[in-house]
Amino acid sequence: MLTPASCEQIADWLDANVEALPCDETAVAGAAGRVLGAAVAAPADHPDTAVAAVDGFALSADATVGAGDYNPLPFRVAGSGDPALRPGGARALVSGEALPRGADAVMPLEEAEPRGGMLDIYAPLAPGENVIPPGREARAGDHVLGPGRVLRAADVALLIELGVETLNVVRRPRVGIVVVRDGTRNAGGAMIDSLVLQDGGVGENVERPPGEPLSRTLARAPGDLLIAVGGSGPGPNDPSAGALEQAGEVVFRGAAINPGETATVGRIDGKPVMLLPGPPIAALFAYDSIAGRAVRRLAGRSTELPYGTRRLPLARKIASGLGRLECCRVRVIDDCVEPLAVADNRTLSTAVRADGFVLVPEQSEGYAEGAEVTVYLYDQRCRQPDPGAAWLTRKP
Amino acid sequence: MLTPASCEQIADWLDANVEALPCDETAVAGAAGRVLGAAVAAPADHPDTAVAAVDGFALSADATVGAGDYNPLPFRVAGSGDPALRPGGARALVSGEALPRGADAVMPLEEAEPRGGMLDIYAPLAPGENVIPPGREARAGDHVLGPGRVLRAADVALLIELGVETLNVVRRPRVGIVVVRDGTRNAGGAMIDSLVLQDGGVGENVERPPGEPLSRTLARAPGDLLIAVGGSGPGPNDPSAGALEQAGEVVFRGAAINPGETATVGRIDGKPVMLLPGPPIAALFAYDSIAGRAVRRLAGRSTELPYGTRRLPLARKIASGLGRLECCRVRVIDDCVEPLAVADNRTLSTAVRADGFVLVPEQSEGYAEGAEVTVYLYDQRCRQPDPGAAWLTRKP
Repeated sequence: MLTPASCEQIADWLDANVEALPCDETAVAGAAGRVLGAAVAAPADHPDTAVAAVDGFALSADATVGAGDYNPLPFRVAGSGDPALRPGGARALVSGEALPRGADAVMPLEEAEPRGGMLDIYAPLAPGENVIPPGREARAGDHVLGPGRVLRAADVALLIELGVETLNVVRRPRVGIVVVRDGTRNAGGAMIDSLVLQDGGVGENVERPPGEPLSRTLARAPGDLLIAVGGSGPGPNDPSAGALEQAGEVVFRGAAINPGETATVGRIDGKPVMLLPGPPIAALFAYDSIAGRAVRRLAGRSTELPYGTRRLPLARKIASGLGRLECCRVRVIDDCVEPLAVADNRTLSTAVRADGFVLVPEQSEGYAEGAEVTVYLYDQRCRQPDPGAAWLTRKP
Repeated sequence: MLTPASCEQIADWLDANVEALPCDETAVAGAAGRVLGAAVAAPADHPDTAVAAVDGFALSADATVGAGDYNPLPFRVAGSGDPALRPGGARALVSGEALPRGADAVMPLEEAEPRGGMLDIYAPLAPGENVIPPGREARAGDHVLGPGRVLRAADVALLIELGVETLNVVRRPRVGIVVVRDGTRNAGGAMIDSLVLQDGGVGENVERPPGEPLSRTLARAPGDLLIAVGGSGPGPNDPSAGALEQAGEVVFRGAAINPGETATVGRIDGKPVMLLPGPPIAALFAYDSIAGRAVRRLAGRSTELPYGTRRLPLARKIASGLGRLECCRVRVIDDCVEPLAVADNRTLSTAVRADGFVLVPEQSEGYAEGAEVTVYLYDQRCRQPDPGAAWLTRKP
């Protein structure tokens, strides 16, 4: 008999025992999606001098005082050779270009009407208008990004602009995947490999030569984390937990989740080991609720599931057993949550037909019709639409 | 002077002129994240026979009639060699295993109390209980997945279970990236490369030898789509639009977006070409609102932005100019939306400090304090939390 641990207990243990991996140095240009291992400080003020925020004409704001529709003020457009602006002069600039001495504002190109070498100004500019002052993007020494940041495309651009060339990013976790016994045709192993990738890790299939005791396979498997698929149950033909006990330590035997209740957590020589059930639907949920957290922690990521969420009302009630976290697959139809048939709880095709899932906590017997629930979305297309930008999501 | 096109006009044109690329054949095992090019039909019923949904004991439901706490019914546990169940017999099975002839229900392992070679049953089972009947996952010929599906880990597992080995997936778009003139240090080019990857494409830097006319670079650039960064403005030093006109066709000169108003759309020999502004903050938004749609359409994906969304109230009003789509970078604080300072609209660091952005449509002058707006989230950690599973998102 299993005495299953709650997800919260397991999460506590993982948080206490699984740390982010050490860092790799990597070039900034390809670092989007990687996780920063340490804060990054700006090496210098950026920009280092006032620059144009838009394409246009640099000039002195003082000289525009009094300009108006009935009082256009003429400026002489100077060539780009001049280091400084002369009184009454203006200089064409592209955005990002340094202002010449004597200029403190930029007239945007689309609002200016140059004629020949002259430019008429029809409205005054304030000092600093359309100018990015020195240090506005970052001051020397500013921590522009902190550890744990999942780098965005814009981060990469800013770091390159700041002159940062390499970064310390958390090494991608290597996850050994041992297929002990799988639904059929190694479906579970391939699925876990995809899930690991989604959480920032890299799966490595661990071959098990015929006749090798499972405990030896587990003990010699490479990687920062080990996931074994199949044979996690308490039955006489379930070797995983016994093998883990022989090779290392079982910490939690069984988990209070459904499906996935035979999931088992332990370690070998300090390396975390996750034993998942063989049926892919059970392995999927055991991965999402337990093993994925270990991958995300090793990867330096936040512990959240890698799915978007929405709060939506239930179209029909969900019943659930007390004492276990229930993963109820659902469809999102007309902004309502339709649970899929309970009779199909153990089929894998439910996870394929579902738009996402609802988690019913251990202490709950379910949710009533109309209750608002959190849906974890497999499919981005079930996101809440933006009424102000319907063209973004319009189906052609 | 630019006569900018609206995002909706540009979206219409892209939807009419940019199609999903032809398919590549790929192995199922590594296909998660790829986009299906055609429907996939189940080659056969799956499962092909009734199988156990859980680990346990297969038996005949009829023989359990009358079982109760005060009337345990004994069953003899048969070895796995028997092709059929004898009357009064039970057979240990793991989930996914075929039921023997004569069995039509499975007693879960954790509810059974075997003693010696016997098993006592304390409650009746219904026929079909804990059994997955043949064809329940899929019937031969069923379209289990349709074209356009972004393959999930569970899809991969189901397809492998069904015996599908290869798939037709939409080829990844190759996107030539020409850096015409960039903010500084090629920040924009590296950023666009990351954004293209996020939308399912692969960026290729197109080198431009010194002295090569830009029109020739554009004309000879490889790939399914061409993105040029910088020089898209109307100024005398902005070569992009002229070069595009020479090499092919300008369709939309300028876009009603801010920042990013000089973005220009055209084509060369049928290949779509996107000219983006040089300043990375303008290139970022021009990519998101225009160029990314072309990448996603080529990739066979839905047109949505690759960001999660939430509807949240504004902590302060957002003002916006009529006639252009405004990208207002925001932070999400205590489930309220805080716009970042308008004065910093043209700085790249706003996109780094922001948790996401709000789009103010062309026909709107902004949103009042307290108005509910859609936030596109750069950061998954700003998702709506699940009150039923706080342990998932708990910060250790």
